[in-house]
Amino acid sequence: MSSFIHDDFLLQTDAARDLYHNFAKAEPIFDYHCHLPPAQIADNHQFADLAEIWLGGDHYKWRAMRANGVDERLCTGDAAPWDKHVAWCAAMPYTLRNPLYHWSHLELKRYFGIDTVINPASAKAIWDEANAKLATLRVHDILAANKVAVICTTDDPADSLEIHERIRKTGIKTRVYPTFRPDKAFIVHQPAAFNAYLEKLAGAAGRGAVKSFDDFLATLKKRHDDFHAFGGRLSDHGMETAFADPCTPAEAKAIFDGARGGRAASPAELAQFSSLLMLELGRWDAARGWTKQLHLGALRSNNTRLFKKLGPDTGFDSIGDYPQTRALARYLDTLDSTNELPRTVLYNLNPADNYAFATMIGNFQDGSVPGKMQFGSGWWFLDQKEAMEWQMNALSSNGLLSRFVGMLTDSRSFLSYTRHEYFRRVLCNLLGSEMERGELPADRELVGGMVKNICFANARGYFRLGLDPAYAG
Amino acid sequence: MSSFIHDDFLLQTDAARDLYHNFAKAEPIFDYHCHLPPAQIADNHQFADLAEIWLGGDHYKWRAMRANGVDERLCTGDAAPWDKHVAWCAAMPYTLRNPLYHWSHLELKRYFGIDTVINPASAKAIWDEANAKLATLRVHDILAANKVAVICTTDDPADSLEIHERIRKTGIKTRVYPTFRPDKAFIVHQPAAFNAYLEKLAGAAGRGAVKSFDDFLATLKKRHDDFHAFGGRLSDHGMETAFADPCTPAEAKAIFDGARGGRAASPAELAQFSSLLMLELGRWDAARGWTKQLHLGALRSNNTRLFKKLGPDTGFDSIGDYPQTRALARYLDTLDSTNELPRTVLYNLNPADNYAFATMIGNFQDGSVPGKMQFGSGWWFLDQKEAMEWQMNALSSNGLLSRFVGMLTDSRSFLSYTRHEYFRRVLCNLLGSEMERGELPADRELVGGMVKNICFANARGYFRLGLDPAYAG
Amino acid sequence: MSSFIHDDFLLQTDAARDLYHNFAKAEPIFDYHCHLPPAQIADNHQFADLAEIWLGGDHYKWRAMRANGVDERLCTGDAAPWDKHVAWCAAMPYTLRNPLYHWSHLELKRYFGIDTVINPASAKAIWDEANAKLATLRVHDILAANKVAVICTTDDPADSLEIHERIRKTGIKTRVYPTFRPDKAFIVHQPAAFNAYLEKLAGAAGRGAVKSFDDFLATLKKRHDDFHAFGGRLSDHGMETAFADPCTPAEAKAIFDGARGGRAASPAELAQFSSLLMLELGRWDAARGWTKQLHLGALRSNNTRLFKKLGPDTGFDSIGDYPQTRALARYLDTLDSTNELPRTVLYNLNPADNYAFATMIGNFQDGSVPGKMQFGSGWWFLDQKEAMEWQMNALSSNGLLSRFVGMLTDSRSFLSYTRHEYFRRVLCNLLGSEMERGELPADRELVGGMVKNICFANARGYFRLGLDPAYAG
Repeated sequence: MSSFIHDDFLLQTDAARDLYHNFAKAEPIFDYHCHLPPAQIADNHQFADLAEIWLGGDHYKWRAMRANGVDERLCTGDAAPWDKHVAWCAAMPYTLRNPLYHWSHLELKRYFGIDTVINPASAKAIWDEANAKLATLRVHDILAANKVAVICTTDDPADSLEIHERIRKTGIKTRVYPTFRPDKAFIVHQPAAFNAYLEKLAGAAGRGAVKSFDDFLATLKKRHDDFHAFGGRLSDHGMETAFADPCTPAEAKAIFDGARGGRAASPAELAQFSSLLMLELGRWDAARGWTKQLHLGALRSNNTRLFKKLGPDTGFDSIGDYPQTRALARYLDTLDSTNELPRTVLYNLNPADNYAFATMIGNFQDGSVPGKMQFGSGWWFLDQKEAMEWQMNALSSNGLLSRFVGMLTDSRSFLSYTRHEYFRRVLCNLLGSEMERGELPADRELVGGMVKNICFANARGYFRLGLDPAYAG
Repeated sequence: MSSFIHDDFLLQTDAARDLYHNFAKAEPIFDYHCHLPPAQIADNHQFADLAEIWLGGDHYKWRAMRANGVDERLCTGDAAPWDKHVAWCAAMPYTLRNPLYHWSHLELKRYFGIDTVINPASAKAIWDEANAKLATLRVHDILAANKVAVICTTDDPADSLEIHERIRKTGIKTRVYPTFRPDKAFIVHQPAAFNAYLEKLAGAAGRGAVKSFDDFLATLKKRHDDFHAFGGRLSDHGMETAFADPCTPAEAKAIFDGARGGRAASPAELAQFSSLLMLELGRWDAARGWTKQLHLGALRSNNTRLFKKLGPDTGFDSIGDYPQTRALARYLDTLDSTNELPRTVLYNLNPADNYAFATMIGNFQDGSVPGKMQFGSGWWFLDQKEAMEWQMNALSSNGLLSRFVGMLTDSRSFLSYTRHEYFRRVLCNLLGSEMERGELPADRELVGGMVKNICFANARGYFRLGLDPAYAG
Repeated sequence: MSSFIHDDFLLQTDAARDLYHNFAKAEPIFDYHCHLPPAQIADNHQFADLAEIWLGGDHYKWRAMRANGVDERLCTGDAAPWDKHVAWCAAMPYTLRNPLYHWSHLELKRYFGIDTVINPASAKAIWDEANAKLATLRVHDILAANKVAVICTTDDPADSLEIHERIRKTGIKTRVYPTFRPDKAFIVHQPAAFNAYLEKLAGAAGRGAVKSFDDFLATLKKRHDDFHAFGGRLSDHGMETAFADPCTPAEAKAIFDGARGGRAASPAELAQFSSLLMLELGRWDAARGWTKQLHLGALRSNNTRLFKKLGPDTGFDSIGDYPQTRALARYLDTLDSTNELPRTVLYNLNPADNYAFATMIGNFQDGSVPGKMQFGSGWWFLDQKEAMEWQMNALSSNGLLSRFVGMLTDSRSFLSYTRHEYFRRVLCNLLGSEMERGELPADRELVGGMVKNICFANARGYFRLGLDPAYAG
């Protein structure tokens, strides 16, 4: 029996294999959105063992283990790394058809050259072989081996850029940029946390205390400037839905002053404040040529009992079913009406919304930039084969796949660069099948060129980020 | 030309055929949710003719006939059985691609050995052959031939368990259990019907009149105890959406007293009352190790004119498009926060909600029971090939298919056991195709074991119901 | 290399090829809904050049060009026709996988015999060859070559039928009928436009001024009569969602009088007025044996900046995500409850609603007419391969595909008759694949008969429109 992860994994036709091996495979990686910890890049972190790099911080795996009846101790708890590893290897056969089955085998093969099926019987050999390899496989090695040209981390405006400066000094070829994600600047319904945040923000901005709404905007703007000066060109927001309620500056000020004085904003006030702030932030992005990302539709922190124990982002979020289109259209239109709509990437979490999002971007394509409005790659729960295909089909049927900026990792793990390989195989398989069925012209240069663009060149052209000469093309 | 329903029907690859014939086919049936009439089991009912067993009570077929322009007399009316049969056989060629086309042929083949294409020309031969067979094919023969280990019928707490006791005395190997479905205990917006119901409930509980809200809960709880004592371990609810409105006991009491006194609860009060009652019922299930089923999303009794003539469940229901996730998450979380969330099966009727539901279960998988939270099998309109595949794909991509408790009939007809065969063929075809494409390991024991578990063993382990030794494994 | 659009384009199996070539291909076209300009039919319009017939009025192509970074001048602006043509040919390679890639090649091949891949290099040859052909290819030639038996244009009740009378006098075999689409009769929230509309309506009806709500209804009804007298048998409505709010005649009158006097109806009043008016219109249709079409779910005119510049229907609409089912069921039920529900075709724009719509029609199939309630063909953004397949699968799984009235163009372009070919190829491919997989009986007469019916005969039987003897069957 040949390897499970063999050269033509997921590639069902000759055309697909040609596209992948000759057009996609060699392209560098442009990871324009992820949650990697910048400090580990700055430090060229060395991992203690396979459990740290493979299981640490990976809520996908924790969810699968919990569903398999594994105790929390062995997921996020204080069990020994080896015991966690064994629990995961024991769960693996139960994950058949879950993307984790593919991803995990891909990760072991590409990073450690391990080509065995993962199960309890192979747990020990995997542990030993991977750990031996980790002695000489540090973060910078991983980035170089995967030809990672760009990483955009996810950063709060109140975060110092000092770590990013340390990364830059290491001289690695991967260019690492901060992404401006001011989610906490919106929490006027939680005055204590909001006020603590403003302290931190003021410190990061090197400005005095935030006394007024105007101060607040000026302080945030200072950080936008700082991120820009460092080379950052992306912002990002995680929200259930877009905000597009009418709000006058006077109303925003009153809500702000209330929160500053300890009064929690009502839901309606929160929506108003958020609406005004999102417009302001959109204008900054447009003025500076940034790209705004909107991650819409998550239903977060659903398990109060385990949230109290483990905190956020530990695997208790799911997909919401909110009305999305009316507010989203209004938000984008308001910016567009004064020519202040930045390049925008819309990500939806509920696949039922794919067509609504894929057609929404068309409303604001105005010919000014090819692919100005982007329908983002399959996000989170959609970051797997069938949902990647849905996203690409929805985009293709209602827009231009050829202008797509392609895959990102969205990951907390340095092992996730294999997701680009996964995405590329899915993309090439889709296109290759259609070439063989005659639904696309059998013109390998035409289709192969599109593949190359989606893998790397489109993102390079779109995001306006500086690259190392090795990747600048 | 070979039979339409041949041995490898729906099985497109060698691997699929191997999985079905060598792992799935011989497994017994665990029908943990259906609407079969217990009296017909107790009586070992003999069917008058093919029309009774094939067309009686089957609103799927009535809908198809109506859409085909067939008069109501021949669907649910007083037409002669033979005339109804002819009308159905005449409609059959118009049902191509509807699941009824597959199901009907499967039913005739498996129960009667009839292997012809159904159409007006074959109607007479089918009628004669099936009726001859029905002389010796009674309900108990059907259950034995289909290896039905368990049936969970759907029962109101106000129903007597006497029929169930009669079933038990027959000594059949199929264990038949009542399911606790208290839909009528919620109807405080219809005080007359509510009060009549409470009379009946009190009678079934063998308690005095229900004078207070506390009486109400105690009476319901008595029936929960009775069902438990009989071996029942499942509850079930049919609702448009989950209820999760705040409601104090005092408010519930006031709403109850109002209804008891003839005052209809307002929509808001109905939602409050339902919210509190659902929490109470959830706690009872959790305390006793039961499994709760939630059937969410139907839009019922849409045709007033024909509802007045024919009553409910006659084929005038359809799929709703309600917001589901927020209230559902809150309901489950409230129970979970005090460690009182029972094993739960969530069924959605709108396939657009598949991913939201498939990820919702993950929020409450806590490692305590493998597959504690289940995303239920394709329900009602989704109980056919493409929608079964969607459900399994959504579950696979976002959870653990291997822990799935699999298929149920949800049916009013004893001919519906072929739906398990149908489901198993679809399952094996899906898995076999992926083995042949290299998306699953070509390991027949690994994948075959998963198939066997989904067909029977998972449900046997999960539901905690007593089995006849012949099926206890 | 063979042609991209070859004889077996989209037909993957022998059975599919047999169905298409021997059952589908030769059928005439019954275009029961489109937006073709009647004047061009009356005038047997001659097109100035390929840009006019291929790019004029086609907002699908404009959207694609804008997404590709093409300036508005070259889409809808004052650029020279040749420059627009070049811009479109240059965009074509970027539309791979968009339906425009297929449609555009089909259009050039079928209308002009041009068999080249479209790109900048072929732009000149295409221009010359097509323009030469257009010297002798006028509207009537197109209709005859495509065997278009029926065209139902989309007309406002305030439109004169004079152009339609001119068409009739031309003696062409294509029967052209007006469709009653009174969208503007609802706009009581825009009193100025509403009052101007009533002037025009009164003129068309040849009645005096509309002084009262009763006048209003009588005037509209006069136009319904006029359309009927001309042979029209369809009405149509474009709405976000169905209207089903309670509204008394007195309330409707008050809202009407308010608007007549310059007072804008509130959103709630608009919904009430619309609800009552929709019931009234439904009753007229039912009484006369018409078919009502409901186009539900668009989110229109989202780009204010470009709307101001270009007006409606220029490519800035997208898919909404409104709750649809409750109001829709109530509207249909209210008409049905008095036996006044006309034949109805429901079109949804959000594919997430496919199953809800496909099951909704079943609620009102009452055996009176085969396929009385229709789930309409993939509309607008859904008018392409994957979405056509979804619509047919949803209809098949939940209703009777065999009773489907099939494809319409919904187009503003005379080149769109190739969409019928496209639809037929998709249909035959779907059915043929299932015959080869054994999911349908391998009975070419049975399945082929269904194909023929869906292509033409079902619509001919359903819509009750007069046909030229050449097409009357």
